[in-house]
Amino acid sequence: MDLNALATPALILDRRIMERNISAMSARAKRHGVDLRPHMKTSKSAKVAELATRGHSGGICVSTILEAGYFAAHGFLDISYAFPIVAAKIDAIHAIAAKTSARIRLLSDDMGALDAVSARALALGAAFDVQIEINSGQNRGGIHPDSPDLIALGRAIAGSKALRLAGVLTHGGHSYDCRSAAECRVAAEQERAAVVKAAENLKTAGLPCPAVSPGSTPTAVHAERLDGATEMRPGNYVFFDLHQVGIGACTPEDIAVTVLSTVVGHNRATGRILIDAGGLAISKDAGANDQLPGTDYGWVYGLDGRARMGDLRVSRLSQEHGQIEGHGPAPFDRLPIGAKVRIVPNHSCMTAAAYGHYDVVDGGTEVIDRWDRVNGW
Amino acid sequence: MDLNALATPALILDRRIMERNISAMSARAKRHGVDLRPHMKTSKSAKVAELATRGHSGGICVSTILEAGYFAAHGFLDISYAFPIVAAKIDAIHAIAAKTSARIRLLSDDMGALDAVSARALALGAAFDVQIEINSGQNRGGIHPDSPDLIALGRAIAGSKALRLAGVLTHGGHSYDCRSAAECRVAAEQERAAVVKAAENLKTAGLPCPAVSPGSTPTAVHAERLDGATEMRPGNYVFFDLHQVGIGACTPEDIAVTVLSTVVGHNRATGRILIDAGGLAISKDAGANDQLPGTDYGWVYGLDGRARMGDLRVSRLSQEHGQIEGHGPAPFDRLPIGAKVRIVPNHSCMTAAAYGHYDVVDGGTEVIDRWDRVNGW
Repeated sequence: MDLNALATPALILDRRIMERNISAMSARAKRHGVDLRPHMKTSKSAKVAELATRGHSGGICVSTILEAGYFAAHGFLDISYAFPIVAAKIDAIHAIAAKTSARIRLLSDDMGALDAVSARALALGAAFDVQIEINSGQNRGGIHPDSPDLIALGRAIAGSKALRLAGVLTHGGHSYDCRSAAECRVAAEQERAAVVKAAENLKTAGLPCPAVSPGSTPTAVHAERLDGATEMRPGNYVFFDLHQVGIGACTPEDIAVTVLSTVVGHNRATGRILIDAGGLAISKDAGANDQLPGTDYGWVYGLDGRARMGDLRVSRLSQEHGQIEGHGPAPFDRLPIGAKVRIVPNHSCMTAAAYGHYDVVDGGTEVIDRWDRVNGW
Repeated sequence: MDLNALATPALILDRRIMERNISAMSARAKRHGVDLRPHMKTSKSAKVAELATRGHSGGICVSTILEAGYFAAHGFLDISYAFPIVAAKIDAIHAIAAKTSARIRLLSDDMGALDAVSARALALGAAFDVQIEINSGQNRGGIHPDSPDLIALGRAIAGSKALRLAGVLTHGGHSYDCRSAAECRVAAEQERAAVVKAAENLKTAGLPCPAVSPGSTPTAVHAERLDGATEMRPGNYVFFDLHQVGIGACTPEDIAVTVLSTVVGHNRATGRILIDAGGLAISKDAGANDQLPGTDYGWVYGLDGRARMGDLRVSRLSQEHGQIEGHGPAPFDRLPIGAKVRIVPNHSCMTAAAYGHYDVVDGGTEVIDRWDRVNGW
């Protein structure tokens, strides 16, 4: 089937672009001598996970318990659940591990949470690997590598009958504020240095630290060295998006997902073109606008997905309506009612979450496959 | 099951609050002598539709073809698909109508689109009711009631063998910029006056105009009269949200949906509390902030959903993490790791779309039911 025949809105994944992104990241990991543990929160797709783990250990990273269960059921048995663990989630994680024999690695930066997790795991007769979350500059969660809490946490984990100290992990999310490759390189080194320092401090205290894991797409793209790290955990890079363009982590040609949409109206009074992709279909994430002012809710490409149509952008969103405009007169003739466009999103993780599947193309406009994805919690 | 035992994040619907909202809107429609045709784009739930149509004709409004199919399958056979129709969607709509005997009313403001729709319907041997979309001040779509295009469109519909002129429809979406009941009353009268004027113009031209349909929650709440209208189509009112509070359409006590979330971290350096409801669980809609500055991504209530916890708000969102803060010191003691909170959203339509079901409570914290909802297109 051709894209032109698809019901809209639809989420289009260009496999050719994605495979290029995957190959490039795989090569980076190999060059740095670290494992690539792709974060599946972006694609939430077993098909993507198969491609993204090729040539590496097969380990992945997830952001929700539902993802953990989905990927474990698809045979991915080395899973890092990179979200702060609380005791109430242990039963669900244990059930997945018991059913699939997946090894699900947990994350924490809090002694009280770990005590409760340890108690619940003990009660279930379960045991889990735990990484300590390190703050490398994002200031969302995690502890400073030189904090005495690090050693205390490490000792608590190592001392628990239900937990094993699996190492340290950080997400250099401050890289999302970068505006150039040079800034990304600085953030990448902050990320690496923090997590490696934490590992050294644990080892100095006589504690094990097998996994040393930095991870974010902008830092993974631009890291100059990863000495001391054992793996990297980028996620967004499989698809990229306009925010990553603004950061300097990719070019527009690297963006692998777009929203296929149909022109449904011409407003000659406002000079705007209406499409059937609104806030639910595109998301209201405006992530790229700090770095790429005037992006609004996304760029407008033609049906073939090859190039932006002038400076057209999605300027307004309501639930199901999008409104397209540029600086010049609206190209009503080039975009008649019924025509299809492809919207390049600000933030592919948020946009993709509105869809239950991908319609897959391979560089052209022929839909060659449909891949599922798992949403929710 | 008590809310405290639910896996999080979860979408909680307080049926007691919703039924109060539904009763109040039903009474308004009766007072104005018009039918209530609730817009199901907010709840996307057959259970909600049953309650919201009680005491009225049973007609509903939908925003997607998937909704049309879902509600038709649940026995709602008078459906207004209030989105600009294009020919490519006619086959899917016809299939629903043929399968369920639902009568699906279409919407258009464009002669070329109508020509193509008419041709496709004729080819299928189908016939559809069509309303003309009127612009009452939102300036998104629709034509001015005094535009000569109105009569031309009316004649084209009336003259098509596959279409029937079913009336006029407008969405006074500019009411979402209101900041008080007084402003809503002005927007409501603009909405009513525009659609009624359009109906009069059609009738003066000798054309039928059976349905005269204004519709938006803020205008439906505050309309002082609906003379000349035959129905109203509010949607958001079943749940309301902080944006509606800011508009002046409801009070915080009227908000029926919240996101149940678990505290997963304490950041003592930033003074922020981390929860497991991020951008996917809450949505990044910031709709209320124009009218309620500092709302950010939502207010924080306790587990019982009865009152805001001080001035706590969700100030930052990443994909799965939310960060809570207020103006004072963070209440780490009142919100220990593992505690549950309920987040009151900016825009319930956007927030609810991340969930496949509602966990229903009835004024308390006991989960009494689970209701499905239909997402996607």
